[in-house]
Amino acid sequence: MNRITPVVLCGGGGTRLWPRSRSARPKPFLPLLDDGGTLFAATLARCADRSHFAPPLIVAGAAHLPFVQQETDGIEGARVIVEPTMRNTAAAIALAAHLLPRDAVILVCPSDHFIADVSAFRNAVAKAARLAGEGWLVAFGITPDEPETGYGYIRQGEPLGEGFHIASFVEKPDRARAETFLADGGYSWNGGLFAFRAGAFLDELATHRPQMAACVEQAVTGGSTEGAAFHPQREAFERIAAESVDYAVMENTRKAAMVRVDMGWSDIGNWKALHAARGHDAAGNTVRGNAELVDCRNVMVDSDGPRISVIGLEDVIVVVDGDDILVTSAAGAQQVGKLKGPSSQ
Amino acid sequence: MNRITPVVLCGGGGTRLWPRSRSARPKPFLPLLDDGGTLFAATLARCADRSHFAPPLIVAGAAHLPFVQQETDGIEGARVIVEPTMRNTAAAIALAAHLLPRDAVILVCPSDHFIADVSAFRNAVAKAARLAGEGWLVAFGITPDEPETGYGYIRQGEPLGEGFHIASFVEKPDRARAETFLADGGYSWNGGLFAFRAGAFLDELATHRPQMAACVEQAVTGGSTEGAAFHPQREAFERIAAESVDYAVMENTRKAAMVRVDMGWSDIGNWKALHAARGHDAAGNTVRGNAELVDCRNVMVDSDGPRISVIGLEDVIVVVDGDDILVTSAAGAQQVGKLKGPSSQ
Repeated sequence: MNRITPVVLCGGGGTRLWPRSRSARPKPFLPLLDDGGTLFAATLARCADRSHFAPPLIVAGAAHLPFVQQETDGIEGARVIVEPTMRNTAAAIALAAHLLPRDAVILVCPSDHFIADVSAFRNAVAKAARLAGEGWLVAFGITPDEPETGYGYIRQGEPLGEGFHIASFVEKPDRARAETFLADGGYSWNGGLFAFRAGAFLDELATHRPQMAACVEQAVTGGSTEGAAFHPQREAFERIAAESVDYAVMENTRKAAMVRVDMGWSDIGNWKALHAARGHDAAGNTVRGNAELVDCRNVMVDSDGPRISVIGLEDVIVVVDGDDILVTSAAGAQQVGKLKGPSSQ
Repeated sequence: MNRITPVVLCGGGGTRLWPRSRSARPKPFLPLLDDGGTLFAATLARCADRSHFAPPLIVAGAAHLPFVQQETDGIEGARVIVEPTMRNTAAAIALAAHLLPRDAVILVCPSDHFIADVSAFRNAVAKAARLAGEGWLVAFGITPDEPETGYGYIRQGEPLGEGFHIASFVEKPDRARAETFLADGGYSWNGGLFAFRAGAFLDELATHRPQMAACVEQAVTGGSTEGAAFHPQREAFERIAAESVDYAVMENTRKAAMVRVDMGWSDIGNWKALHAARGHDAAGNTVRGNAELVDCRNVMVDSDGPRISVIGLEDVIVVVDGDDILVTSAAGAQQVGKLKGPSSQ
């Protein structure tokens, strides 16, 4: 079988990880992990085995190019598509598909997610690649372990090879529906990972979004290559509708398939999720930086400098970044993006 | 009646108000009040009416002299006794008594307490001064409104003029005893305020602590005056036993009396107490500095610079001072003095 080409997407602001995540340095490029590494670097590392994966093709905004280059400098054959502006995932994937042979199997990898179980990831990728080789557009359905209301769901249909047909994509549910999904067992989270042949994707895009397909083609034809970087033609690119790949293609194609995977996945959508992904001490506390905790349980502390002293709290998150200090309940972590502070930066 | 001489004591480190309170700038000199004023300035202001009070005599450590002078520069006749080292309240009061006429009525005022109802304070001072004029050593018993375990108590005896004899002084009780004291009604908090004639105090000191009285006399005789400042002779002063006025004199004298007063008193012993003394919004929140509160109740925020964003918390205190950040539950505020941080400054 041919090697799989990772297409690594670097969009997404991550305002809910404010104050650490800011527009100048969004979530994929922050040293969030226990080892001090970034989610972007971890994404590349999961696809570093050259017996299975071709060198990565990265899609990133111009402003974040220095962060990308810092991690890809040592990766032979890595290429970057530099987006002049953000146009959501359908456009980003279409650009990448245009730059690859039609029969190349693409693995779409968001670079701001956490995956604890890398071998489960690789097994699922192998299954998805086999389905993709047969012409299917394959989504990854993450096995849910709680009634999460922050994710879209995929309802699985009849079995298909090592996976399933997709019965339908489901918008973020309310709590009651999320609980029925969890009990049902036939629903999984849409993790934003996909596998398909480049040509199959472009054909489906041309069918369901002909206008977008035309703009992408113009942006590629009129674009320019500079070393490992490809710059799409700006005017054509800016005419592309900013739609997600789910909305533009996956929900419309008759070739939608899925593989299920349980791999300790998290979108690290907020500080509570990051707390869960990091290591804890016996009391459930997680400390990064200079801190003293007294009588605390499930407290997360993350400071870029000042010393944080915490007394007598439970399920609380404290983050210090420059001149900003965030103190939130775990439940309140969902609301961080709504603070006036982050929007007024 | 002669005017009363306020003797303002500036000892006390206030480690439980760390990180705002540090040894270089202890509690009396911090801008803790709603109007940005210090407890020391508020203490002077309560005794500023020259028809009732003589100019103040202040006892302070050498290191804190600049803070004292900043507030007393405009006060005609104010004097300062500069302690070369801390020797607790009995020594401080004895020094002051020596510098005043024997028949002067002294009002001993700790400068690190908060008093909400100044007219209640003045009424109690008038009563205490009348008893002091008759030769009594008068303590102020603060009417308790909760079973506080952090204060010493005074048990009142038979009525005496506008006050009472003192039946006994009681050490800080446990919770159960504090509750019986509150229910009994005959116990009040020892607020550390006293009134007596200078000569009466020195006589009692000579009776019950002859060694201390001798050392104080030597320290005064060998001391030197420099403008408004009096410097006791260091060697003699350092020989004085560091005892509280309660322990050295009040618990031993047969002339102990008390007046009761309900004046919104607090020793501002920790951040929770300061939160109570400050103004609140409808949700019980108190903000000093740059902050945004979302879904918070009874939260206190105090920042000297960085912006603090708080989400979804109740009964939590956040204080930022330079490179130190304190986040504590209201109940945990009692433990601030036990942090490793403050002791390692």
